[in-house]
Amino acid sequence: MKRDLPWIQLPFIANAPMSGVATSKLAVAVTLSGGLGQIGFTGSPLRLEAELENAQAQLKDFVATNQTLDALPVGVGIIVIGSKPQRWLPIFAKFKPAVVWLSFGSTQQMKAWTEGIRETTPSSKIWIQVGSVSAALKAAQSCQPDALVMQGSDAGGHGHAKGASVVTLVPEVADALKDHGLSHIPILAAGGIMDGRGVAAAITLGAEGAVLGTRFIGAEEANMDLDVREEVLAASDGGESTVRSRVFDDIWGANPWPQLYDGRCLRGAIYDNREKGMDMDSIRTQFYHDSRRSQAEEVNMRDIACIWAGAGVGLVKKLEPAADIVKQVQEGARTRLHDAKYLV
Amino acid sequence: MKRDLPWIQLPFIANAPMSGVATSKLAVAVTLSGGLGQIGFTGSPLRLEAELENAQAQLKDFVATNQTLDALPVGVGIIVIGSKPQRWLPIFAKFKPAVVWLSFGSTQQMKAWTEGIRETTPSSKIWIQVGSVSAALKAAQSCQPDALVMQGSDAGGHGHAKGASVVTLVPEVADALKDHGLSHIPILAAGGIMDGRGVAAAITLGAEGAVLGTRFIGAEEANMDLDVREEVLAASDGGESTVRSRVFDDIWGANPWPQLYDGRCLRGAIYDNREKGMDMDSIRTQFYHDSRRSQAEEVNMRDIACIWAGAGVGLVKKLEPAADIVKQVQEGARTRLHDAKYLV
Repeated sequence: MKRDLPWIQLPFIANAPMSGVATSKLAVAVTLSGGLGQIGFTGSPLRLEAELENAQAQLKDFVATNQTLDALPVGVGIIVIGSKPQRWLPIFAKFKPAVVWLSFGSTQQMKAWTEGIRETTPSSKIWIQVGSVSAALKAAQSCQPDALVMQGSDAGGHGHAKGASVVTLVPEVADALKDHGLSHIPILAAGGIMDGRGVAAAITLGAEGAVLGTRFIGAEEANMDLDVREEVLAASDGGESTVRSRVFDDIWGANPWPQLYDGRCLRGAIYDNREKGMDMDSIRTQFYHDSRRSQAEEVNMRDIACIWAGAGVGLVKKLEPAADIVKQVQEGARTRLHDAKYLV
Repeated sequence: MKRDLPWIQLPFIANAPMSGVATSKLAVAVTLSGGLGQIGFTGSPLRLEAELENAQAQLKDFVATNQTLDALPVGVGIIVIGSKPQRWLPIFAKFKPAVVWLSFGSTQQMKAWTEGIRETTPSSKIWIQVGSVSAALKAAQSCQPDALVMQGSDAGGHGHAKGASVVTLVPEVADALKDHGLSHIPILAAGGIMDGRGVAAAITLGAEGAVLGTRFIGAEEANMDLDVREEVLAASDGGESTVRSRVFDDIWGANPWPQLYDGRCLRGAIYDNREKGMDMDSIRTQFYHDSRRSQAEEVNMRDIACIWAGAGVGLVKKLEPAADIVKQVQEGARTRLHDAKYLV
């Protein structure tokens, strides 16, 4: 990993490219702290261009003092479903992000993206995020990515509806890659990793590093409304306070996500109404009324917004600079691995 | 843990008390290998008595040479829902199992069991299995168990329908216990732990040891039909090949399990018919026909049996003696923790 991203410090961590939340501000802070900072999928090429311009400007001195870099030291998240490579490749070519992280799409789509990026921006590494062993193997064989990100069922946001956690995904993928002569492809773990304990666990499971999403919602540099963030910081016991469902996409109208996927959000009225068997139109109507009501009175934010958060939400407790998070997590992982030896 | 169970070797592992599968034969083999062998819930006190008599006979020499033991060195699984302590306490008193593992029930029920056991069998340690942070805290405060078993969403068999994996459960519970002055209660991790990598991860997450269920389906001493076991050994990619659902209990008639719980099985016709929207009566009819058909022709075992298995099913690949499993897992965990230090 250090060969691809020479500025990083071990243990390797990255912030997840959370759409809307992980902007250049967070990405720059994480990179400057010795991790891989990533910009979430922007939906629009123009908006990505603006984010990368920002990152480039803020990282100017850092790049100047790290002369081995042949790329802009941030990653860029791409949701493959519904996106066409042609619209994005010129931006990659212009800014040369160190990593392009591809998520959600068929192996064929991933392959088209991979070939396009390798042709136009050979200095960008390609990471592919998947949530099952079979998807990992297909992606590895077809695309030969520079890393596979194994996303487990604890992850916030979109993921495999019927998934397993990184506890089983990471070792089984490691074995499958080995069996197929593909063990040169490093695995990164994502989903439920919140602090040094999770990072140490990811590494013992067979990952070369870890991706933290929900924990970085607690970073001052993350882009999030204060009242939404308060809900995240206040939540605990993610198996109770978050839930995987397709209702969080259904609520906006026709759901563009394949049945394979759903998403994990804080539990609120939208989900509870669905559980009660309310039809989708009535759920939408209630959602609309609750949103209107919120302009005049106090309303639970979880009832009027889909607040994507992972099952580890109870372990993010306060707002702090991203640099402090990176430092705590890295030190925590080292301490944990050191202490663990007394129990084996 | 070694104070409670003086014969164990580190890292500490136990076999899960899988109903029907973990009989005295498996329990004895695991204990003799330096783990905690456990007998699964038998449903009937008479059957438990027979199992414990077996274990006692087989462990006679072992107990004789371990003079510090004041209990029979095996654990006993109890499903609290639907079971009354009075029927089981005399058996505990007679055999003094080293551990009584209580699972599935309200805090109040757990408390009644705990008090009953402590009164009649003070040398038996009480472990309580839970699947959420709030349940763990309630059990810890009400029962002061000798250990909490945190069961994550990857586990096979029954568990929290909306659960988190041990990746988030174990650290959040550790923090919650600390915050409430209860950190003297050790945590064990269960769910998705298949080999040394999983055990090392469990320990770095904050557990003092790990419980392996599905891996021990691959133990020669586990009690399981050959054709059922073959399905387990052949399955891979647990997020695809296993699934959590209540249909595996609904299939037998009125479902006695509270809504909080469902169970993880290998995916087959029972589940697929449910997903297609088939009503329960038709699913049962089809199940009955498939079962009849299996007497005359080859039928997929997963279609005519609920084969409980965890998301780590892809990591159990062959049949081997339980002693070999214990040894491989323990050595694997040590190796893993040793190697991990090069990545931090």
